[in-house]
Amino acid sequence: MSEEMGITVKKTEFSEWYTQVVQKAGLVDTRYGIQGFLVHRPWAMRIIKRLYQLFEEELDCTGHEPTLFPLLIPEENLKKEEEHFQFAPEVFWVTEAGSDKLEKRYALRPTSETAIYPMYALWVRSYRDLPLKCYQSVSVYRYEPTTRPFLRGREFLWIEAHDVFVSHSKALEQIKQDMGICEKVIGDKLGLSFKFFKRPKWDKFKGAEDTYAADCMMPEGRVNQIASTHDLGQNFARAFGVNYKDESEREQVAWQTTFGMGIWRIMASLVAVFGDDKGLVLPPEVAPIQVVIVPIYRKGEGEEVIKKCVQLAESLKKFRVHIDKRDEKTPGFKFNEWELFGVTIRIEMGKREANEGKVTIARRDTGEKTVALEKDCETAVAKELSLIFHGLKEKSLKLSSTAEAKTMDEIMNAKTLFIKTQLCSSNMDGEECAKKLKEIGLHVRGTLLDRENPKGTCSICGKKANEVVYLARAY
Amino acid sequence: MSEEMGITVKKTEFSEWYTQVVQKAGLVDTRYGIQGFLVHRPWAMRIIKRLYQLFEEELDCTGHEPTLFPLLIPEENLKKEEEHFQFAPEVFWVTEAGSDKLEKRYALRPTSETAIYPMYALWVRSYRDLPLKCYQSVSVYRYEPTTRPFLRGREFLWIEAHDVFVSHSKALEQIKQDMGICEKVIGDKLGLSFKFFKRPKWDKFKGAEDTYAADCMMPEGRVNQIASTHDLGQNFARAFGVNYKDESEREQVAWQTTFGMGIWRIMASLVAVFGDDKGLVLPPEVAPIQVVIVPIYRKGEGEEVIKKCVQLAESLKKFRVHIDKRDEKTPGFKFNEWELFGVTIRIEMGKREANEGKVTIARRDTGEKTVALEKDCETAVAKELSLIFHGLKEKSLKLSSTAEAKTMDEIMNAKTLFIKTQLCSSNMDGEECAKKLKEIGLHVRGTLLDRENPKGTCSICGKKANEVVYLARAY
Repeated sequence: MSEEMGITVKKTEFSEWYTQVVQKAGLVDTRYGIQGFLVHRPWAMRIIKRLYQLFEEELDCTGHEPTLFPLLIPEENLKKEEEHFQFAPEVFWVTEAGSDKLEKRYALRPTSETAIYPMYALWVRSYRDLPLKCYQSVSVYRYEPTTRPFLRGREFLWIEAHDVFVSHSKALEQIKQDMGICEKVIGDKLGLSFKFFKRPKWDKFKGAEDTYAADCMMPEGRVNQIASTHDLGQNFARAFGVNYKDESEREQVAWQTTFGMGIWRIMASLVAVFGDDKGLVLPPEVAPIQVVIVPIYRKGEGEEVIKKCVQLAESLKKFRVHIDKRDEKTPGFKFNEWELFGVTIRIEMGKREANEGKVTIARRDTGEKTVALEKDCETAVAKELSLIFHGLKEKSLKLSSTAEAKTMDEIMNAKTLFIKTQLCSSNMDGEECAKKLKEIGLHVRGTLLDRENPKGTCSICGKKANEVVYLARAY
Repeated sequence: MSEEMGITVKKTEFSEWYTQVVQKAGLVDTRYGIQGFLVHRPWAMRIIKRLYQLFEEELDCTGHEPTLFPLLIPEENLKKEEEHFQFAPEVFWVTEAGSDKLEKRYALRPTSETAIYPMYALWVRSYRDLPLKCYQSVSVYRYEPTTRPFLRGREFLWIEAHDVFVSHSKALEQIKQDMGICEKVIGDKLGLSFKFFKRPKWDKFKGAEDTYAADCMMPEGRVNQIASTHDLGQNFARAFGVNYKDESEREQVAWQTTFGMGIWRIMASLVAVFGDDKGLVLPPEVAPIQVVIVPIYRKGEGEEVIKKCVQLAESLKKFRVHIDKRDEKTPGFKFNEWELFGVTIRIEMGKREANEGKVTIARRDTGEKTVALEKDCETAVAKELSLIFHGLKEKSLKLSSTAEAKTMDEIMNAKTLFIKTQLCSSNMDGEECAKKLKEIGLHVRGTLLDRENPKGTCSICGKKANEVVYLARAY
């Protein structure tokens, strides 16, 4: 691999490092020519398809059904829920078709509440129709002023689930189930550490009663919101007429939740949290290739070694294995390239290894090499993959460390990226104190769902503290 | 199931029957409020997800890689290939964002050649980069004047593959591979019969050299184009600068193909070809539920029977099985509803069956019932599914029957839906004869790839015949 193909800066220069990795590791091409619209290259799409699959499996298991609602949303739908209509400045509008000027403007979905709920109003009749739980795996479109690959885009990939219930308590149970889905996929499968907060009232989704969101700490010391689920109360149901007849035939207004799984944001965290100076490091669950076998031989003497590689690959077929047979590239080039791409494990197979029935296994994360007998290779690979997963998990967890701070001074001198402190309120009357924190770059991310009891006073205003909150820098 | 929930017309009244089936069998909701933009309900999405998966597996096996290119295409890209720009009247335009009037107009992709090929021009450098084979599974947007669910829409679902080669002969090999993919998925997995034609020159894709397309005959006697693959020659490569250096370092213009798999159109054929008076009939490969088990019991005596159903389902877990436990619905209601939804096999389990260790298996397609021992149930179900698949395949094949006609009179009196005849030419000079056929409602669909030799004269103009062509009514 040539100098120019590899990453030319250390990860400590995070911003430039990130820009290089997303392009050089074959994830995106940023040269399409419309700001915030990226070309997703095969390596990214193969990871993204796995991410979608992991979430969709969990959604299917929890009684959600796949749907697809139109991309275009009539302007009047968007206006129906007053607070939600604050989305309008972020919306792309279709106004013409062919040579016609359209009578109405249509929004490209910035999120699909206003596309879906008019249909829910038609579908929901009786308590027997509830819960109604649907999701769609789509791109959404927002006219963002600044953009950055996988973090903030004008076209970004996610899954949105929209659920309807007979009661507020059922809706709140759903919020907990959504958090469980995140734990299973993002935590247990991907190894990313995150904290799920109930956002303060001044930072909730437009139109929601409450927003719960998962924050994953990034190496540059800012939190990345990778998923969020919203208690919509009856706000949208009232605006769109999502009503049901209860068991006594009385008309009732339904309760709703909406859950966004930020496929793009999770990609950003996978890149940023696990990557290193050499490029991507992918967790085994989503690595398009888990094991790359690199044959090592002198020009013209490859046949026997490659035959061995094919045998080895056959014995490893429960993993995603690839043999790099390119004759025109050197082993060194291949090592570097697969490291850049984040392939979890590399197996080197030379003439000596072939003769001795041994293989050298190299871990992508630590670079450590172990030698295994060929016949034990499957077990050895499984063990290394598990070690790598746990190593990555540990790495992510470390970023999430939290210190407690009791005064503005302690907050300003805190050494961890999350800071736990006490605040007068997470309702609107606490916003003044939050603004003061914002002046020093810190955002109030919210409270934990397992509510912690505050003792004493607000670290900012000194009034009685009603909440234990977490602070962090944000994007 | 109430009268109103079931299909109220016979399939012989095809148009109304089709409209009812796509809605009543839970596939789409047509009440969204923008013409040609449908809501895809869970039953449709579960089938569609399988269709995508079947094609994506074949694409992966044939060296294609997944990608995702932006929805928006700058107007100037669209204009680059002159003939292709004829798409403009079919395009939706984004012209505003937030409160800004955009400086340029952006098209919603009507198809993605003009989004993808500028990037290919950057990606392709050397013959070593070829072949380049990518696909994307997306919706495309066309401002169609008339729309009909799954047949013609303003937002429709497909897969598009875009391939680049060093030579025309490699490109033509790809066309054959594309046809093979259709045969494997649409023919061998879904049981839909179709004919693959080389379209006459006056009916090719805008900007292509030649178009090859799969026509599936519909019960209303019109062909449905379910897939097409285009030999783009060097037209787009020239317009977009997709060049490569050959082994002697000489700059060469690349050769391209593009292959569209019409997921929506295939849905239309599945509904129309296999359905019957009672509703959908789904081929086993894509049925979201292959076996529904309906417990039959007197009020309050269900426990034992349901326990038996659970055991039975366990023994059938290599199929997609569902137990319909709804207590408030009668078995008759359930039978009708699952028939409407096209579930392949129904198993009835009553107290007697439970006691005797026997089950009654009902086929959706013929309604035939067989009794099997519970312990042999897995084998019996597998056999019935296979019989159903072959029965459906036969049904589709019958629609495709073809008669040969040698004169305009014979053409007008032909009894089959495809008519084989001889034409002076399938180049532009044959278009006059094609227009005469169009006056009687018949379209020249094209020639077979295994070219048949004509003997004698054109059935229309009487000049020397150069082609054996197939005629059919079309949408």
